[in-house]
Amino acid sequence: MGKTDIMVNGLPGNVAKIMATSALKNERFNVIPFSLTGQEIEDDTINIGGISFELIKPDTRVDKIKEIQSQFASFIAIDYTHPTAVNSNAVFYTQNKIPFVMGTTGGDREKLEQVVKNASTPAVIAPNMAKQIVGFQAMMEYAANTFPDLFKGYTLEVVESHQQGKADTSGTAKAMVRYFNKLGPDFSVDDIQMVRDPKTQEKELKIPKQFLTGHGWHTYTLKAEDGSALFEFKHNINGRDIYVNGTFDAVMFLVQKLEEADNQKKLYTMIDVLNKV
Amino acid sequence: MGKTDIMVNGLPGNVAKIMATSALKNERFNVIPFSLTGQEIEDDTINIGGISFELIKPDTRVDKIKEIQSQFASFIAIDYTHPTAVNSNAVFYTQNKIPFVMGTTGGDREKLEQVVKNASTPAVIAPNMAKQIVGFQAMMEYAANTFPDLFKGYTLEVVESHQQGKADTSGTAKAMVRYFNKLGPDFSVDDIQMVRDPKTQEKELKIPKQFLTGHGWHTYTLKAEDGSALFEFKHNINGRDIYVNGTFDAVMFLVQKLEEADNQKKLYTMIDVLNKV
Repeated sequence: MGKTDIMVNGLPGNVAKIMATSALKNERFNVIPFSLTGQEIEDDTINIGGISFELIKPDTRVDKIKEIQSQFASFIAIDYTHPTAVNSNAVFYTQNKIPFVMGTTGGDREKLEQVVKNASTPAVIAPNMAKQIVGFQAMMEYAANTFPDLFKGYTLEVVESHQQGKADTSGTAKAMVRYFNKLGPDFSVDDIQMVRDPKTQEKELKIPKQFLTGHGWHTYTLKAEDGSALFEFKHNINGRDIYVNGTFDAVMFLVQKLEEADNQKKLYTMIDVLNKV
Repeated sequence: MGKTDIMVNGLPGNVAKIMATSALKNERFNVIPFSLTGQEIEDDTINIGGISFELIKPDTRVDKIKEIQSQFASFIAIDYTHPTAVNSNAVFYTQNKIPFVMGTTGGDREKLEQVVKNASTPAVIAPNMAKQIVGFQAMMEYAANTFPDLFKGYTLEVVESHQQGKADTSGTAKAMVRYFNKLGPDFSVDDIQMVRDPKTQEKELKIPKQFLTGHGWHTYTLKAEDGSALFEFKHNINGRDIYVNGTFDAVMFLVQKLEEADNQKKLYTMIDVLNKV
């Protein structure tokens, strides 16, 4: 089996940089030296791992993509761009028949799904690329739907810690709260305790120093009011490796889907990647 | 609605005593003053909450139950007896058309289920009466079946703490290990770390002093080999309240099933009680 050509979009952004760096070292992939970027980006190129990537802005990309496609017959795009670019990028990919993995969050998600459903090329859309977290969420969703009020009379406490730069509450924690609410406890997303202070993270939570600038730690604690029972769930992610691996799995999943030529389904999620539908 | 007559079997055993004591205080129940016990028990009666319970041994129970049934037209039995009594008790209940909740573990479980399936009265069989733990196990079973190998490449650590008197490994932990194995980690039940030393329990695990003589704490930790991710699940039970509540829920479930006169199904588990099938 030959290498899969991939295009990492969103350079010089942080996550796109991590993806490109990892993909360059990954034997399964050939990273093509172009990356879609925002109009506001001033540089024309960026050097990653000794390779110069040409940054392609929206005003030139329609012509540029034809040139690229004449060089690389087929490739899969990985999108870690910006919430404001999610929908226009999806339209661009489908119009140019580029299968893609959308790792960027935000935008109009309904429109995004609709565009993919009507497309002739497949895509994986996943606001969270960490397979194990996606599986864990599916588990909690199952419990919430199968055993509503299982934890009726329990209190819930949610603590999440992320690097200082993250201003908003963890999206994963907010999604989880929806399931916990179905399971009984009365809990608002405003009650989620956000930890952003590196000192607290290092001293109290014992987060390794090298991951203070990039981590996502979550603890959900259910307590029976009379103190007779405690249930706790934790998922602590250090660095970005887990997201890189999940993204690459999604790419390989698309490779497999493209080989199944008569496949009518175009819209996939990480649950499909997990299930290898 | 009138009170439900119940018979708590297994006195003067510890768990049966807790059940009888709680049931006497519970407005939903009328506890009839008889209890099946083992042949080796020397006492003829035991006093609980000011009420004298007659202890009925196997050699007299066939006659005795007729006398009791002439006094109490219908009642539900709660069985917290002994592994060696599980199968003969189940036969006895079904022959005498006594619906029952089997909380006793051990015995030949297949035979037990077969006896109930062929019976004309319903029973709930549950090696673990803690509804939340049963729900949690169902959740893990779902994950194991739906996402096999989700945690491939992860290591597993299982620590369980119980009162010093408990000699064997936690049955719940052993059952959970089966699910975790399906999820990827290679782990043997022999690797389960058992904590039985009260000092360690109090000092290191911070188990409240009053529960050193009765608790079941379990922690399952999954770690990615490269340290990039940790998932942890805990269920810490103090005392017996959670089992009492689950047992009483099972009794009320049987009351409901008995009202559905044309119900063909006789064998139920705590999952049914949770789902209120």
